[in-house]
Amino acid sequence: MAVRKRIIVLGAGFAGLEFCKSIKAEDVEIIVIDRRNHHLFQPLLYQVATAALSGTDIAQPIRSILRHVPNLTVYLDEVIDIRLAEKKVLCKHHELTYDYLVIALGGKTAYFGHDKEWEPFAPGLKSLDDALNIRQHALTGFEEAENTNDKKLRDELMTIVVIGGGPTGVEMAGAFSELSRVSLPMDFTHIDPRETRIILIEAAPRILGHLPEDLSASALKQLKALHVDVRLNTMVKNIREGVVELEGEEIRAHTIVWSAGVAASPLTRKLGVAVDRAGRIEVQPDLSVPGYPEVFAAGDLVNLKQKSGALVPGVSPAAMQMGRHIAKVINAELPGHKLDNAAREAFHYHDKGTMATIGRSAAVAQIGSIKLHGRIAWLAWLLVHLLFLVGFRNKVSVLFQWAYNYIRYKRSSRIIFDDFSAKRRSE
Amino acid sequence: MAVRKRIIVLGAGFAGLEFCKSIKAEDVEIIVIDRRNHHLFQPLLYQVATAALSGTDIAQPIRSILRHVPNLTVYLDEVIDIRLAEKKVLCKHHELTYDYLVIALGGKTAYFGHDKEWEPFAPGLKSLDDALNIRQHALTGFEEAENTNDKKLRDELMTIVVIGGGPTGVEMAGAFSELSRVSLPMDFTHIDPRETRIILIEAAPRILGHLPEDLSASALKQLKALHVDVRLNTMVKNIREGVVELEGEEIRAHTIVWSAGVAASPLTRKLGVAVDRAGRIEVQPDLSVPGYPEVFAAGDLVNLKQKSGALVPGVSPAAMQMGRHIAKVINAELPGHKLDNAAREAFHYHDKGTMATIGRSAAVAQIGSIKLHGRIAWLAWLLVHLLFLVGFRNKVSVLFQWAYNYIRYKRSSRIIFDDFSAKRRSE
Repeated sequence: MAVRKRIIVLGAGFAGLEFCKSIKAEDVEIIVIDRRNHHLFQPLLYQVATAALSGTDIAQPIRSILRHVPNLTVYLDEVIDIRLAEKKVLCKHHELTYDYLVIALGGKTAYFGHDKEWEPFAPGLKSLDDALNIRQHALTGFEEAENTNDKKLRDELMTIVVIGGGPTGVEMAGAFSELSRVSLPMDFTHIDPRETRIILIEAAPRILGHLPEDLSASALKQLKALHVDVRLNTMVKNIREGVVELEGEEIRAHTIVWSAGVAASPLTRKLGVAVDRAGRIEVQPDLSVPGYPEVFAAGDLVNLKQKSGALVPGVSPAAMQMGRHIAKVINAELPGHKLDNAAREAFHYHDKGTMATIGRSAAVAQIGSIKLHGRIAWLAWLLVHLLFLVGFRNKVSVLFQWAYNYIRYKRSSRIIFDDFSAKRRSE
Repeated sequence: MAVRKRIIVLGAGFAGLEFCKSIKAEDVEIIVIDRRNHHLFQPLLYQVATAALSGTDIAQPIRSILRHVPNLTVYLDEVIDIRLAEKKVLCKHHELTYDYLVIALGGKTAYFGHDKEWEPFAPGLKSLDDALNIRQHALTGFEEAENTNDKKLRDELMTIVVIGGGPTGVEMAGAFSELSRVSLPMDFTHIDPRETRIILIEAAPRILGHLPEDLSASALKQLKALHVDVRLNTMVKNIREGVVELEGEEIRAHTIVWSAGVAASPLTRKLGVAVDRAGRIEVQPDLSVPGYPEVFAAGDLVNLKQKSGALVPGVSPAAMQMGRHIAKVINAELPGHKLDNAAREAFHYHDKGTMATIGRSAAVAQIGSIKLHGRIAWLAWLLVHLLFLVGFRNKVSVLFQWAYNYIRYKRSSRIIFDDFSAKRRSE
C-alpha cells in the first residue's frame, strides 16, 4: 500500500473547514492547525459585541465539526513559519512536512500603518475575544455613566464611535443604537440610554461602497432613522485613548470600534511570493501559489481578479467556494499525484448576492439584479443567517433564543464578566 | 409628604434579590450595590466550569431582574467600608447613608489560612470568571496533551484534582468525568480522553457530610461508577503549581480545583460586631445585627443556630428565605418606623430538602424523611433546577439546549476564548 499523501490545512475558518469536508479523506492524511480551538461564525460576531448573542452561540469546537472526517488530526498550535522550498510548516509545538498545503489563515484588522498606536484604543472585530472585549467595554460605559454626576464625563461615557462604513461598521452602529435605545432604557435610574450618541465615520462619500448607490442611500436613511450620526467624507487623523481626532474636531468617546481595514495574516509576507499591499497572495487561476503547485491559498488572504476586473471579495461564501475548489482539484489529481497547473480548473466565484443588516427590520440586499431594502431585505438576511446557523451549529436553541429576543427586544448576553476593577483582563 | 426611608442592599445574590422583590417598594427608596452587573445562578456554576452551559446561560443582568421594582437604583460599585455607627456605606464611587441596611454580600473561597499560597494554583468556584477560568484551563490541558509525545507530561495534563467532597466538589468531579469519558473521546487523535484521571480529595471519612450516611455511601458508589478516584480521610498538605501534596504522595495535575472551604465576605470583620471563625455575623433571631436594629444580614455571611442546634446552611433556599423575612420585618414596621427587635418575628429556616447531583442519572436527595438515589434522585434534581431556571431566566431556550445536550451528550460550550498563548488573561 502506498504511503498516504499528507495535506496540511492552516486555519479552520470557512475556507479550511469546507476544504476538509470536501476532500476525499479516505485516501490522504489531513492535519488541521489553528491557534484557536473553535470555528467562528463571523457574520454574527457583531451580535456578540452588542450583547444580543453569547460567545458560545456562534462558536463551535473545530474538533466537533471535523469529528467525522477520517484520517484527520487537529492541532491547537500557532504557525511560526512556512518554508515552501522545503515543504515544511513550523509551529510552536510541531514541525511538519506536507505533500499539499492549504493556507487559509484569514485576515486581521489593519490600521493603515497605525496598528500599534491605534489598536489599543479602537479594537477591531475579528475574534471572539475582540467581541467580548467590545461588549464588556461598552456595557461598563453605561454603568460608569450611572455612577457619575459629572455631565461632561457622562456624555463621553455614552458616546460610541464606529470607524468604517462597510458591512461590519454599519451592522455595529445599528446594533448599538438598538441596544441603547430599545433594550437598555428601562434599566437605569440616573441616565437615559436613549441619549447615547452613536457616530459612524466613513472616509468615502458613501457607506457600503460595494453596493449600488441607491442601496447605499437607503442604508444611510435607515441608519439615520436609528439616530446614528453618519459622517461621510470624513478621515480619521488620529486615535488616542477615548478620543477620535477628525479634521477640525475631536470626539471624546468611551467606546471606539475600528472596522475600516483588514489585511491578510502577516505570515504571507514571509513566503517570498508576490503579495498585494494588504498582504494578500496573488494566486494562480487555480488558487495555487505561483511556483508551488502543491500549495494553495484560500479565503481572505487571496488576491484574485474576477472577469469583471474586481477582486473576489473577502466574504464567507467566497472562502467556502475556494475551499471546495481546492478540494476538487486535489481530489482529481490525487490518484496519479501529477501536479499540473495547466490541467487544473480555474476558480470562479459565484456571487449569490450581498446583504447588510442595519437593525431590526432594516437592511439592504442585492441578489442578482434584484435590489431590496427595509423589512423585506431584513427578512431575507434573517432567513439566510438562520438557515446558515442551523446548519452550522445544529443547534435549534439558538434560534429560539434569537426569536425570543426579537419579540421581547431582550439582550440576553448583557453580562459583564469582569470585576468592575477589570484588573485581570484587558477588557 | 414624609421623606422616604432609604434602604441600602449590599449584594444582589439570592438574599438581596428576594429582599428587593418582597419589600413594599412604593414607600421607600432602595439602592442596590453589587460589584458585578449580573446575578448568578450559582447552583449550576459547575456546569459552566465543565463546559455544559455557557456563562450567559446562568447569569442575568441585575438591572433586568429588578427593572419593575419602583424607586430602586442599582449601582455597579464596590463596598469599601460600612460605618454602622454613622449609618453610612462607603463605596468606590458613592458615599451613602441609610435608614435600613441589608448586608447580603455572600461568601468567598477560603483556604484554611493558605489563601495567598494556594489560590493561584487551585481556584475556587464562586464567580462566572472562576468558572470560565477553570473551563479554559481544563480544556487547554487536553489540547496540550494532544500536542505532546511526552507520556509523563501527557498524564499530568490529563489529571484533574478536585479538593473537597461537598456538593460542589462532587458535582464537579462527576461532570469532569462525563466531559472526558463521554463528550471528548471522539475528538482527539493522539490521546484518549477516557484515560483522564479524576481525583476527588476529602478530609473527612465520607463525602457529602451534611447528608445521612447511607446517601453518602450511595454517592460514593455512583462516583466510582464514573471512574472518579475518591480519596477519603485525606488531608491536603500543600498546593504548588500543578502539584497537590498529600501525606506521603504528590499528585501532579494540570487542573486543580478547590471546593473545600468558604468564608464570609471579609468586610464582616471590619464591622466591630461578633463574627465566627469563618467571618459570619452572629445575628439576632430576627436576622438583625446585634446593637443595630436597622441593620440586617442575610445569606452565606450569617451565623444563626436552628432549634436543632445546627447552623442554617449556606444554600440558596436559606438565603432567599432570609431575604423575604427581612422584607417582611421592615414592611411591618415601616409605617411607624419604630425599630423594636423584641416585637419582630424570629427567622425559621424551612428545609425543603437537600440534593446533590453526581452525573447523568446519578444523584442523591433527601426530601423530609424520604431518601432518593440514582436516576430518581437525578430526575428530582433536574426538575427542581429546571423549574428554578425557567423562573429565573424566563428563558426557555436554555431548557432546549440542556435537553438537547442531554440527549446528544454534547458539550456546547467547549470554547477556549483565549489565544493559545493566553497572554492577555490569567486563564
